[in-house]
Order: sequence, then structure tokens, then C-alpha cells
Amino acid sequence: MKLGVCYYPEHWPKSRWQQDAQEMRKMGIEYVRIGEFSWSTIEPEPGELHWQWLDESLDILHSQGLKVILGTPTATPPKWLVDRHPSMLAKDEQGRFRYFGSRRHYTFASLEYRDECRRIVTLMAQRYGQHPAIASWQTDNEYGCHDTILSYAEADLTAFRVWLKGKYGSVNALNQAWGNVFWSMDYRSFDEIELPNLTVTEANPSHRLDFQRCCSDQVVAFNKLQVEILRHYSKGRDLVHNYMGFFTAFDHHKVGQDLDVASWDTYPLGFLDQEAIYSQEEKQTYLRVGHPDFGAFHHDLYRGCGKGRLWIMEQQPGPVNWAPHNPTPAGGAVRLWTWEAFSHGAELVSYFRWRQAPFGQEQMHAGLLRPDGQEAEAAVEAAHVAQEVRQLSQQTGLDADALMALPDSGRVALMFDYDACWSLDIQPQSRAYRYLFWCYRMYEALRELGLSVDIVSSEASLDTYKLLILPAQAHISDGLQERLNNYQGVLLAGPRTGSKTDSYQIPENLAPGPLTSLLPLTVERVDALPDHTRPSVFGLWGEGRLCHWHEQINTQLPYLLKDEAGRPVLVGANKHFYLGSCLDKSLLKMCFAKLAASAGLATEYLPSGVRIRERGKLIFAFNYGPQASHYRPDNAELVIGTEVLPSAGVAIWQRQTADR
Amino acid sequence: MKLGVCYYPEHWPKSRWQQDAQEMRKMGIEYVRIGEFSWSTIEPEPGELHWQWLDESLDILHSQGLKVILGTPTATPPKWLVDRHPSMLAKDEQGRFRYFGSRRHYTFASLEYRDECRRIVTLMAQRYGQHPAIASWQTDNEYGCHDTILSYAEADLTAFRVWLKGKYGSVNALNQAWGNVFWSMDYRSFDEIELPNLTVTEANPSHRLDFQRCCSDQVVAFNKLQVEILRHYSKGRDLVHNYMGFFTAFDHHKVGQDLDVASWDTYPLGFLDQEAIYSQEEKQTYLRVGHPDFGAFHHDLYRGCGKGRLWIMEQQPGPVNWAPHNPTPAGGAVRLWTWEAFSHGAELVSYFRWRQAPFGQEQMHAGLLRPDGQEAEAAVEAAHVAQEVRQLSQQTGLDADALMALPDSGRVALMFDYDACWSLDIQPQSRAYRYLFWCYRMYEALRELGLSVDIVSSEASLDTYKLLILPAQAHISDGLQERLNNYQGVLLAGPRTGSKTDSYQIPENLAPGPLTSLLPLTVERVDALPDHTRPSVFGLWGEGRLCHWHEQINTQLPYLLKDEAGRPVLVGANKHFYLGSCLDKSLLKMCFAKLAASAGLATEYLPSGVRIRERGKLIFAFNYGPQASHYRPDNAELVIGTEVLPSAGVAIWQRQTADR
Amino acid sequence: MKLGVCYYPEHWPKSRWQQDAQEMRKMGIEYVRIGEFSWSTIEPEPGELHWQWLDESLDILHSQGLKVILGTPTATPPKWLVDRHPSMLAKDEQGRFRYFGSRRHYTFASLEYRDECRRIVTLMAQRYGQHPAIASWQTDNEYGCHDTILSYAEADLTAFRVWLKGKYGSVNALNQAWGNVFWSMDYRSFDEIELPNLTVTEANPSHRLDFQRCCSDQVVAFNKLQVEILRHYSKGRDLVHNYMGFFTAFDHHKVGQDLDVASWDTYPLGFLDQEAIYSQEEKQTYLRVGHPDFGAFHHDLYRGCGKGRLWIMEQQPGPVNWAPHNPTPAGGAVRLWTWEAFSHGAELVSYFRWRQAPFGQEQMHAGLLRPDGQEAEAAVEAAHVAQEVRQLSQQTGLDADALMALPDSGRVALMFDYDACWSLDIQPQSRAYRYLFWCYRMYEALRELGLSVDIVSSEASLDTYKLLILPAQAHISDGLQERLNNYQGVLLAGPRTGSKTDSYQIPENLAPGPLTSLLPLTVERVDALPDHTRPSVFGLWGEGRLCHWHEQINTQLPYLLKDEAGRPVLVGANKHFYLGSCLDKSLLKMCFAKLAASAGLATEYLPSGVRIRERGKLIFAFNYGPQASHYRPDNAELVIGTEVLPSAGVAIWQRQTADR
Ligand SMILES: [Zn+2]
Ligand SMILES: [Zn+2]
Ligand SMILES: [Zn+2]
Repeated sequence: MKLGVCYYPEHWPKSRWQQDAQEMRKMGIEYVRIGEFSWSTIEPEPGELHWQWLDESLDILHSQGLKVILGTPTATPPKWLVDRHPSMLAKDEQGRFRYFGSRRHYTFASLEYRDECRRIVTLMAQRYGQHPAIASWQTDNEYGCHDTILSYAEADLTAFRVWLKGKYGSVNALNQAWGNVFWSMDYRSFDEIELPNLTVTEANPSHRLDFQRCCSDQVVAFNKLQVEILRHYSKGRDLVHNYMGFFTAFDHHKVGQDLDVASWDTYPLGFLDQEAIYSQEEKQTYLRVGHPDFGAFHHDLYRGCGKGRLWIMEQQPGPVNWAPHNPTPAGGAVRLWTWEAFSHGAELVSYFRWRQAPFGQEQMHAGLLRPDGQEAEAAVEAAHVAQEVRQLSQQTGLDADALMALPDSGRVALMFDYDACWSLDIQPQSRAYRYLFWCYRMYEALRELGLSVDIVSSEASLDTYKLLILPAQAHISDGLQERLNNYQGVLLAGPRTGSKTDSYQIPENLAPGPLTSLLPLTVERVDALPDHTRPSVFGLWGEGRLCHWHEQINTQLPYLLKDEAGRPVLVGANKHFYLGSCLDKSLLKMCFAKLAASAGLATEYLPSGVRIRERGKLIFAFNYGPQASHYRPDNAELVIGTEVLPSAGVAIWQRQTADR
Repeated sequence: MKLGVCYYPEHWPKSRWQQDAQEMRKMGIEYVRIGEFSWSTIEPEPGELHWQWLDESLDILHSQGLKVILGTPTATPPKWLVDRHPSMLAKDEQGRFRYFGSRRHYTFASLEYRDECRRIVTLMAQRYGQHPAIASWQTDNEYGCHDTILSYAEADLTAFRVWLKGKYGSVNALNQAWGNVFWSMDYRSFDEIELPNLTVTEANPSHRLDFQRCCSDQVVAFNKLQVEILRHYSKGRDLVHNYMGFFTAFDHHKVGQDLDVASWDTYPLGFLDQEAIYSQEEKQTYLRVGHPDFGAFHHDLYRGCGKGRLWIMEQQPGPVNWAPHNPTPAGGAVRLWTWEAFSHGAELVSYFRWRQAPFGQEQMHAGLLRPDGQEAEAAVEAAHVAQEVRQLSQQTGLDADALMALPDSGRVALMFDYDACWSLDIQPQSRAYRYLFWCYRMYEALRELGLSVDIVSSEASLDTYKLLILPAQAHISDGLQERLNNYQGVLLAGPRTGSKTDSYQIPENLAPGPLTSLLPLTVERVDALPDHTRPSVFGLWGEGRLCHWHEQINTQLPYLLKDEAGRPVLVGANKHFYLGSCLDKSLLKMCFAKLAASAGLATEYLPSGVRIRERGKLIFAFNYGPQASHYRPDNAELVIGTEVLPSAGVAIWQRQTADR
Repeated sequence: MKLGVCYYPEHWPKSRWQQDAQEMRKMGIEYVRIGEFSWSTIEPEPGELHWQWLDESLDILHSQGLKVILGTPTATPPKWLVDRHPSMLAKDEQGRFRYFGSRRHYTFASLEYRDECRRIVTLMAQRYGQHPAIASWQTDNEYGCHDTILSYAEADLTAFRVWLKGKYGSVNALNQAWGNVFWSMDYRSFDEIELPNLTVTEANPSHRLDFQRCCSDQVVAFNKLQVEILRHYSKGRDLVHNYMGFFTAFDHHKVGQDLDVASWDTYPLGFLDQEAIYSQEEKQTYLRVGHPDFGAFHHDLYRGCGKGRLWIMEQQPGPVNWAPHNPTPAGGAVRLWTWEAFSHGAELVSYFRWRQAPFGQEQMHAGLLRPDGQEAEAAVEAAHVAQEVRQLSQQTGLDADALMALPDSGRVALMFDYDACWSLDIQPQSRAYRYLFWCYRMYEALRELGLSVDIVSSEASLDTYKLLILPAQAHISDGLQERLNNYQGVLLAGPRTGSKTDSYQIPENLAPGPLTSLLPLTVERVDALPDHTRPSVFGLWGEGRLCHWHEQINTQLPYLLKDEAGRPVLVGANKHFYLGSCLDKSLLKMCFAKLAASAGLATEYLPSGVRIRERGKLIFAFNYGPQASHYRPDNAELVIGTEVLPSAGVAIWQRQTADR
């Protein structure tokens, strides 16, 4: 439970640096991220390296006892470098180059650009790998930001053909896997294959899926290249990358495998305003605190991408500049967001940014300091959190290591799979259906019942969980099938689970494909609905409405919910359940409460806008709603805060007994 | 009244073919369409022709007594062919090539591609022209699908200049016809003329209209090239093309002139969900049966394009994959759609497709069989229709030929003209106005009054009709003027009729131009309204509201409807009437009832969602509404179904007396 | 108070010209604009000049005593000219050429095209500069129409680099000014700088602002080139350009400096229907008369761009063709628009166009005559106005010169600044905020209080004003600061005033930057809101709601309005006031009434849809509403019209006493 900050000494006169470092310390900050956009300051002319400013900056930070996360500057290559390697530029889906003038002006597949990255990262790692201030390295910055994963340039085509050859060996195997006979799309050699953009109508979905996989693998390779250099020159330092919210265009689990920690950049208000997942009503209600599950969902997701280790690399500190509208946070919201992160296992919460820059694209993006160097609101809240962490430690008798070691959920798991996300979004069948949205709404329902959740990959060990949800695991790999076969807890598989083979074909025995061994049923037909038509559902487990996706199921399993025609919607017995439709939130909660009960897990209906999170004996309570609310757990003592939670309020309770 | 199916043996193992053919027979299917996407299977390498699979397939189908409609495969040229002729690719309005990777990757104007088509069609026609299984040939597939009529590539520019030279002879004639003096747009030679895309603001509407006409003529020429080969090698077979719904980008009447039958591909649910013509309320009400006039409108339209002969080449059998949302049809809807087609004179209804493919772009598109080879819902309904056709024949004593020979409307005609459609949509003047939408709503109003309608071209003979509607016949050709002069029935001309010359100019005497001889009036000014403002209308013939288009008319003719200022909206006397505004549906129905009465035609107000269609003594009744309804004609006996029509219900009645 | 008309003799047979000129005279028209789209008629082949038609046309007009405004034809270069100079074409933001086929197919930055313009304008000026019919020259036509100010072609890049070099001298100065260190965007030379389009995410806002300024300066240079030729060959004639409504992409004040008169093209119905500024309710209410402040706002704005001289070059005479919907004006609306213009100081109102063309893009655009040469409605209204002007002159005893010399407001000023507009729209921070919209709504509130307003540039002399509003003067130049320091009246500065330096950076002392000397306060933070959240505001000056933009202000000044948290929204004392938020119209009116009172100005709440305008002793009253209304000023006598104003009604009153 440490605080950090993102800092750009190159934007400010040297005369200010010492004061900045001192003020950071005073505020309770221990970590400082620097360097990730500074390539043109480090190397203003080709091969002419200016290290002195960075030497000095690191020394000043170190002298104040601050630990540094040093960013490789590869997200912002200088103009001269781009002019030397014009083929490094990405192309958008419309075939237009994406030029220099902002950031991320490169495609991951460019081998020329990878050479330049190898060069600059090696130079940095050689110089600073052993510097005592350096605690960690961040590779690049926000892979994929500004829609930069899928690129359609020459380098991408070359990489795709190599990737396909590696995967399929022969072009006939590819034709078979893709079903190219369908519209005479057969290829005679890998050299005939093009990228799946600018086709007359949609390209073959297998083609599109493989291209997405290939692009994701380019990110993995790009990251690994930097990781290998940093591991070599800077042993013992944590390697990390900063991911983004609601971003699924590459496989974060795969990138995470090569790193030590997962971090992400959390902007609760910007994302609320910007994202289609939220209704107008939600956008209005949560305008100043953010949606109650936005932070939590990503904390749990990325902790799973980081082998259990989580940082917040950028925490919104006030209004941002990039959303359609950029309101100020409610008083207390920055504190709440910080505590929510800690409650989900974040070791570090680092604010973005130290001081608001008066120039450039983000000049309207708040920092802990205002452009004039005075403290902004968030500075006060950050200092408050630092003080509360000390208070928590004292009152619970848990030192920093013990707080860090508090266990996470371990009892309820929701599976999130990037490959499934791509597969199902390529052909949503109903525009109202989005894999990510459905996962999020399932997570929300679990959390509104007071459950603490782990979000796990399809490769995760499932042994410890009492309840496992597969929202829509499109393809069931052999490994997953085996782990499911051995799984002892309660399992719920949602609509579209097992509906595709690895090659994006319909399984021979129809959905749920191999899962039929656990769930003997057949999905005979799909009713993909617009938002306006939400048929009634009722049965043993409750009543309500289904939406967006409605499978026609043939099974002998008991019907727990039925549709208007009496056909099964939710079926199962003992420990294996299958849900064939998306459900409205209230019915979803009824079902999850039943499932949790079968799994021996207690649930409670929380007040609107209130959420809790448990770690060990601690219970963290948060109020995201615009009105004050009330939350008091049984058999627990208040450590921080009050029973009445004001809007944006936080309380921490300690359970008397062992954790339930 | 025959059933057929679309079949892709190349997608399935040969071991299954025999079983497929047997099951088709058993289901009552008599026709099988095959081959139209199979070029890469026929010719996997340039010049290397693989006929054996097709030989075997035709033999198996023939051995089961099935008749084959063989498609030329020119909608899906293989990759190697495209690589040899890159200039065959179309360009979109933004100037981007439209690449290989799906289908229809060619422009009709490419002479290189026409040569390749000539080659492959000749080879196919030579090999199968006399095969006993072959009953018919389909040219290409769905001309224009995926917006492929207007293309802006080199080949299109070349074709356009040739076409213009052919039409105008001298560039001065063109300058004159287009009014190029307007903004110094005069050309000095045909070689100066460009395509009308990517101009700074809209190009000259005359320029745009001629380009649309030229592109349409390219389709005619492309089709004719295939027709001539097929006629030569496969005498006596019906030549057909499969048109689409709500598609007006080429002149179907002209293409139809060269063929024997018109067919179209009908997807009532996909089009309901996709098309802007339908209101949100309609999309919700008719979610599972489709809009009551969708099928009927197109049946009547395309029968008119097919010289009276109509097939359904593709009939939706369950959920499709390509609409924004893809719900399941109501139970009985497939049967209803089939009978609606028969009631409009369809000789054949062919379901798309036999078996749902587990791969490729359409893997979520239902078939009569599921991907696992089991029967889907539609198979049962198809077999039911086959049995009912036999029942109808027995109960009416009409054999197959007599059923086929049942007469169509012949009494009420609505004129639909592709050239008028292009003309009026180029400059709609109010975005709420669309030619096609207006025609459709007029058709709907007629049909809600129980009338059976023929949709006729501007070249059609009008002699037999008692009532003729010209929704918006922009240009009145000399030939049409003459036929109107001789026409003895009741005529209603709608707003915008006669408002343009053939060169897209305003007539010297203003609208309705030459029609003034029949309708002595002048359209002095046009009030083109947004949807939110719908002025009141009242008068001798009823009251209600006008919308979208409101002409200020000067005439001595009697006023049958007036606007709030007392100016005429509907005028006329005896047999000639002019309507200067679009009207809301209920007022439109009042007017049509009056007109029908003047023409000696009986009308009745049908219950919401219910429609009827008469052929000879038979009256077919359909319920598209979500609730059960009731319909009983006078002096008729029930042959099939019940007086109470459930949702998606069908009934067939036989009139006791001669048809009214 | 003269009438004119736009006339295209080249569209009509010569045999008609004499009749046209006679009818114009008879209608009361004194000025005729011709020639501006006639390049291909003047020079059908390169270098082959056809002057005769124009000679004859001028002679005929002259013989009828009509005065001619001759347009240079540079908005429509012929095809052969474009083919000779393909580099003259503009490119859109997507990098696509914008081709020949309509008009305005050039970029202002093309030196090749400027040479061609110099040639043709010189030829015209030499031939007609001394012609007795020529009273005035119009340069080109509607600079920027069809979004033609920002162009991204080679010529634009070249011009931009030259412009930047001229402005910054050294590239380091540019790097500093733009803050290019921010994302390693530093340049090493001016040749590295690209245009700010097609970047991966938004380009540096300083980069974007300078590009906008450069493009605006290209227009100034383009216009000046023509001005210099015309001044040389045609001394004593008024030089004018015709601006457009709601168009801010170049600095009209700068262009206006080189001309004698500002004119603009006013289409009240087209703009109401087309523009996002108007709510759906406004679009419906004012469908047939236009929004009550549309004309007035632009009259006052452009009079300020024309050094006090204003013409209407194109006045809507009936339905137009280019808006999404094109309704007919209410009876009397053309008369009302004409009088509104006169009341704001217009010397001339010229209708567009004489006769509706039956061909080309605008064939559905009404004229004073219909395509068949008969009078349209507007002809009657124009003649009516001509007669009323004579009546006004007689009844008031003011001859034409005296009417022209009636003084304008001179008491209330609203500052409009193109540079501020660009600056604030580049980063609106809330999509609901637009500089132009906010200025317009402030103007509307003033006008609903019966005030007559001057709209002034940031360079204007402020001495005479009693009340000065700075809606959002982003950057306060030294000159403006000095004039504000010396200003004696009541000043209100609105939100975002002083929030940027000239280089688009945040001022070191934060907003309002240098204005702090007059208004001692600091804008600490900004709350940029979506439309749905409108916090309450209350205090000494009223209550209501704020919207879109909400500043957190720190000041010792008295709070006149506060937000829900008790923080200041409107502050000030004596003569200096600062408003930190946008306000709803009713609260804005309360505040303006208070400010006007402090400034010693009388206000009154006018009935909905009614507006007045004062010039000298005359009070003009207008009713834009759909219902009749009532207006009677104190101590004034009716000169024209009635106290009860019908919809689209006009009345003119004469004050008994000296103007208040
Ligand atoms: Zn980002
Ligand atoms: Zn199609
Ligand atoms: Zn214009």
C-alpha cells in the first residue's frame, strides 16, 4: 500500500527539481515514474545522447529516498527516427498512414523499429540498470492506446504471412481451417494472403481472428524484446507495463507472462463518460465518482494478468482532458479510488501526474500540482491516504509486509479470455451483445451481492475456487477441458460457451462443444435480439427478463429458468449449470445468490452504489452513489471511516473472527 | 407452386451427397440451386479445370429426380484471377480499392474481367448445357450486393466516357443537357469528364444521374454477355438472376428483359431489422414475422421485372447472420412467407440454404438442416407447405399447371421506375423523402384496403387496369405520355410526377411537365418538410396530415383535399387526379378507397397486421401481427387454415362466384 | 436601404436580357451582382477570351440605370485550368484530393493558382474597371464554403513551413512555444514539420492553432492579391466579399481590413434547419421565419468586419436546395428579413437569385422569378419593401442619405474574436461547449432584453460603449489589455477569458492571465460538464442553472452568484465583473439586466419571438414567432405596420424624444 507519482522533469526547469522531490516525500509518495516520453530529450540528434539531465534527475530523486520506475521511451520516437524509417508507421483499417505528430506512431510488426528500440533500450539499461534509484522498469507506455494494435501496413502483411506459415505449415491446412471453400476464397500459397481490411464485405471471420491473434503476438514479441535486455542489464528490478481500461485488443495474459507485475492506468470519470457500456442514467448518477465496478473489475482482471501482483501506474487525480466531457471528481473520490485499489491487492497507486503541464495535448489534464506549482485538490487526498495507511497499520497491528500479504478472494472466479473476446465480437450476431460488456455485467452482479471476485485466465488453476463463472468461453481448449473435468466447485457456463472451435468453426456436435461431457445439452438455435425486445423468464430460481442473446437448448437437465415457450434458459443440477441467455441484472443476481449458496458462500444485497471488498480479516466499504448510504458488517469493528458512508466515502472494518 | 433449395455440395464430404438428395426429395423439394460460389473449386489453378465433383453432384441430384438451377460462378473469382487482373477491382466513392477476401470483388465495367467471365461461362455451358438435370441457369449472384453497382475505378471512368459519347455525340450537347454553364463546369471534350465522386461539394445532378444510368447499363451488358453464351449452349433452359430486397441501384426491368424469369432473395426479418424505412415501432411489432408488405411488395415488383414470371431463389429459413440483430422467426413464419410468395404468382420458392455451414462468413445463417446435419425448424415447415400444396390441388381440383396459371391482379397498378428513383434521390430536397419509401407506403395503403396490386414499369401496357398510381414518375417519356393519353381507367399521379426532363432539368412549363395535358395544373413551389412538421389537410375526401413533401399547386381542377391555407393538395375530376403531397397512411387509405370506388373496385379495411391476396378464385389470408386475428371473406369457402388466424397464420379461401 | 439581385445572364438567352433589366427596375431593384461563376464563359479555351456577352449584359443593365457589382470568377476555375495545374487542388483532412466537378476546387495556398487568378482578374479589371455600370467588385465568392479553408495538400505544407519560419525564426523558438518536449515532438528544422492531420491521436493544439492561423492568412493574401489589382484599375469602386453564416474558419476581420464593405449571404431557414446550435424545439418553432437572432447576430458581426459598412449580398427569397429540409418561408418573411437587415445598418439587400435556374446543382433554389420566368412570392415582397422604404422616407422626412446615416448601437458591445474561437474549439474540454454557440446565446439574451448590440473585434476601439461583454476572450493581447485598462464602462468577462497565451499555453498565473489586474481572481480548476448535468446557481443576482463549463474560482471579489457548494460563479464590483460558468438563458438575462442597469441602460423583457432594433430615433420591431404578438414602445409613433405583429410581421416606430 504505497503511493507513487508520474513525473516529467524534462518539462520543468532544473531549479525546481529539488523542491519537487522534497514535496513528494512530504506528501507520502515513495515511487516516481519517469522517462517514458523523453526520447527526443535523450537523443535530440541521431546517435547524440544527452544523459546528463536524467542522471541529475535520478540522483535528486534518489537523494530524497524516492524509488524510480524508469520508462523506456519507445512510445514516442523522435521525428528524425521516423523520417529514417518511414515503413515503421502503422496504417489504419482504411489504408491511411498514421503519421508523426502525437505519439505511438509505429507498428509493432516493424522489424526496423524493433531494431531502434533494441538500441535505445540497451543504451538506457546499460547506463541505469544498476542505478540505486531504479526499482523498476516500465516497457513503453499503454500498448495499443489510440487503437494501435491492428495495423494494415506492409510490415504487418509480412508479419502476418510469416505467422500464418508458422501456424499452419501448409496453405491447404489454412484453407481447411478457415473454410475458404465457402466463397472461393482458397489460397494457393501464403503469398496470396492479404490483410482482412478493405474487402468488399466482411472478410472470413477465421481470417479476421487469426489477424487479431497475430497482431497480439506482435505486441508480445515487441515487449519481450525489451524485457530480455532489461533482465540482462538490470537484474532484480520489477518489470512492468501499464495497461488501459476496457481495452482488449491484445492478450494481456500473454504479455503479462514476461513481466513481474501488471499495472494499469485508471481514469474512472473519463471512462464513465466515454464508454458505450454505460447507460445515460449511469453516466449521470456516477458523474463525479465513476461507476462502482470500473476500478474493481480492472484491478481483479489485471491482478490475474500480473501473476497476482498489481500496481496502479496512473491514477486520475482530477479532471482529465480526453473524454467527451471532463467534470471534476467529487471531494473524496481520489481517496476512494486509491483505497479501492489497495483493497484489491494493489501494492502501489501512482498518480498521473505530478504537475499539470501548461503546454501540449494534455494541458487540461489535472495533476497533484496545478500548472502554477500550487497543490491541487488531489494532493490533499493523496496525503490523507498516506496518513490513513499508517493508521490502518497501527490499528490492525499489520506492518507493510503483512498488509501486502493479505489474501485475495480465492473463492469466486470469473474467467476472462481475450481470444474469446475477439471471437465473439467478430460476429456478435446481435449488436446489443459484447463479450466485455457481458463479463462486466456479470462481475457487477456478483459484486452487488458482496462477493469478492478473482478474474482468471483460461489457463489459470481453478482448484481453490468454490464458484466459477465462464461468461462466454467461446473455445474450450484441451487444457481447460481437463481442468474443468477436475474442478470440484460449482460451475456456471454462460451463453456462447463452447460455441467455436479453435479455427472459428461451429463444433461438430454444436455448442457447447466439448463441454457437453459436463453439461449434456445442445444449443440448437440462437435468437439474437435487439435491445427493445426482452422476453420474460421465470422458473424455480426467479423471474425477470432475458436480453440480447437467447439460445434454444435441448437437454434432459432440470430447468431452473424457462422462457415464455417453456423452453429452458438456465439448466443444471448439483454443481454444473448452463445459462443460455443474457439476463437482466436483478435476475442475474438472484441466480448468482442461488449458485453462491450451493457453493457455501454467503451473499448480501448491498445498497445501491455501495460496494465492499474483503482481504483477509479486513472489509473495505465504498460508496460510489451521489447520496450518503449505510453499511455495517456483522462481527466487525470499524478501523477507518464511519458506518454512514457519505458520497465517495470509504470505511475499513476488521472482522473479529477468521475470514468467512 | 414448387419448393427448392440452395445447395453447396463442395462444402461437404461426397459420402453425404446421396443422403442429402434423398432427404430433399422426401421433404418435397423439386429444385436445387448449386454452383454459384464454386469457381475456386472448379478452377483451383489457372486453366486447370476440375469438373468431376460437379459431374458427380449433378448425377446424384438427377438420379433423385431433382431439377438443377446451375449458377455461373462469376460473383466469386479466385485470388489468382484477381492477381492477374488487378484493374478488375472496384473502387468505392472514397477512391479506395475494394479488395479480395469476401465476394463481388470486381467492377462490372472491367473488360478484362468480362473476358474471364466469358471464358468460364462458356466452359460451363459447353459441359453442362445439355445435361438432363439442368432446368435453369442463374447468372452470377445478387448483382449489386454490398453496394457494388457504383464503382469509381479506371475501368469505370473509361466506360463512362464511352457511354457519354454514345449518348450525346458532341460534348456541347452534353454541356447543354447538364447545364454545365451553371458553375463553369463546361467540358471541351469527353476526355475531360471525370466521375462524380470526391468533388468539393455535390456534383451536377445531371452528371450523377448519367453516371448511375451508365453503371446500371454496365450490369445489363455484363448479364447479357452470359445470357448469350447460355442461350447458345443450353437452349430451352430458363435463365434467371436473383435480385435483392430494397435494392434500386440498377434497372431491374432492363436486366429482366434479357432473362426468362425474375427471382429474388427474401429475408423478411433481416430486412425489417436493417432498413431505415421501418419505424422502431414496426421493428418491434413485426420482429418475428417481418413487415406485412415486405414480401408482397417485392413479389409484385419483381414479377413485373420478369415478364410475369417469378421465383424466390433464396427464402429465409431461420435466423440469418448479417442484420444488426438476428432473431428467430415465429413458428409458422417460414410457411407464411412461402404461401405469400405463391399467392403472388411465384412458381418456385427455394430455401437458402440446405445445411448451415459451420465455417466462413455465414456460419450463423440457418438452413433447413443444422450444421450437425439434423433438421432445423424450417425443414418441418417446408415439408408442411409441400403437403398443403397437394391438399390445395385436391380440394380445388386445380392441378399444378392450373395453379401456376392462376391470374394476377390486373386491376390495380402501381408504377415503379428505377430512373425516377435515382432522379429523385439525387436531390431529395427533404431528407425525410425517399422515392422507394413513398412507393412502398402507397403500396402498403392499397394492400391494407384488401387490394391486390401489380407493380409495373414505365414501359408496361396499362390497358387492363382500372386504377393506376404513379407515385412520383419524375420524367414522363413520350411513350408513357402516349399510353397515359390512351389509358381508360382512373389515374392518380403523386407529388414530383413530371418534375424533371430526361436530362434532369425542370420542365419549361414546370411540373408536372407534359402531364399538364391530362392534369391542367402547375406546381409553383415546393415545401420540403422535416418529419416533425406535418401540416393538417382536410376536404371532401377526408382529413389527416401531409408530410415531407408539399407542393403549392395552381389549378382550376376541383379541390378534393386542401391545406391549412386552403390551397389544393389533392385535385382532379372524373378519372384524372393529382396529389401534391405525401400523406399519412390513414388519409392515404381514405383517398385510395375513394379512387378504387371510382374505378369500380371494392375495398375493405383489414385488421392490423392482416393482409390478403387474390389469385383467380382463391383468396389467401395472412396474419403478420403478433396477436391472433380474424378474417372471413364473403361468399367463400375455407380450403386451408382457419377463420381465426394465429400470429403467422395462413388461410386459403375459395370464392364461390367468379372473381370480383 | 437599397435592393439588389444576383443575376446570371449567361444562363439565359440574350433575347430575355432586356426584359429582365426592365422588370428589375420595376420591382425597385437598384443593384445587380453578376459574373462570379462565369470563368468558363469568359475563357472557354485557354487564353481565348469572350467578353462580348458581358459587354452587352453590362450595357443593358446600365441602360436601365442599374448599378453592377461585378464578381471575379475565381471560385469556379474551368476544367482545362485545373488540368494544367493539378497541384492547385485542395486535399481534405483524410488526405484525399478534392476534385473538379462542382466549385471551389482550389487551395488558397497554391501559388500557381494565384498566378491564374492574377491573370484573369487583371484582364477583367482592365476591361471593366472604368465601365460606368460598375459600382463595386466582389472578390471570388464565399471564401471557405464547403469547408475549403483547411487544406492538406503539398502547397499547404509548403506555405505552412514558410509561415512558421516567418513567425518563429528558429525552430527552437517553435519547439518552446508549442511545448514539443511534451511527447518528444521536437523538430530539428522547419522542414521536419508536417501538417497536423492523420496523426495517431490529436496533434499538439499549438500546432493545430498555428495551422489554422496560417490557413486564414492564406485567404487574406489571396483576397489582397485581387484587391490590389482592382484598386489599381477600378479606382473609387467599393470592394466587397460575401461572407457566410456561422462560419469562422478564417479571420473575417483581417480580410475585411482590405475591403470597403462587408457583405454576407443570409439564408435564415437553411441555417435553422442545418445547424447544431439550434435545438429541435427551435427548429420546429421557427421553421418558416428562422431563428430571431440569426440575421441580427451576423448583421452586427459583419458590420464590425466591414468598418461599419454592411451589405447583404444574397438574401434567401424562398425555399433553398442545400439544407437537409427546405420548407417555404412564411408569407412576409422575406420582407421581415429585409427590414431586419436595414435596421442593422445594411445599405443594400440583394436577393439570390433573380430567376430560378432549371439546371445544375441549385435547380431547386428559389429566385424572385420562377424557372418559367413568372414572378415568385418573393418578388411581391421585394416590391413591397421598395415601396415601404419610400414611405419611411416620406413619413420621417429622412432622405436616402439620412436613412443610411442613422447611427448604430454604440452603447453595448460584444467581442467576437476568430482566434479565440479556434483556440477554444481545438480543445473544448466539454463537447457541449462551443465558442460560437456561447457568443450567440449571450447575444440572444441581450437582444431579448431589447438591447441593440455592436459586435466588435479584439482590436476595436471601446471608448463609446457603456457595456462590454467578453464572452470568452481566450488570449488577451497587450493592445486589448491596454484598451481594457482605459475602458470606462461596465465590463463582463466570461468563462475561459484569459485562459491561454498567444502560443496556446496556460498562463503562468493561470486564467484569467493578464486580466487579473482588472479582475483579481484565479481560475483554479474547470468542471466541464455534459448537457445532462446542470448544477443550480443562486445568489444576489438571481437563480437558475449553469451548464457546460464551470470554473472553480478563488477570489476576494463579492460573490453575485454561487454554486451549490457556495463557491463563486459570478463575481465583481463597480464596473468589472467575471462570470465563471455558462448560464441558462433566463439567468443570463437576469444578469445582463443587472449589468445594463449599472451601465445606465434601460432593458425590457420582450415577448417570445419578438425582437427590436434601434437606429437613431427609429425602432424596428419584428415577430419571428408562429403566433401574432404585440409590441408598443413608449413615446413613439407608428410609421409602418401595426402594434399587433402577426407572425413574420414588421413595424417601424419613431421615437418622439432624442434616442435614449
Ligand atoms: Zn492512453
Ligand atoms: Zn447478398
Ligand atoms: Zn455557399
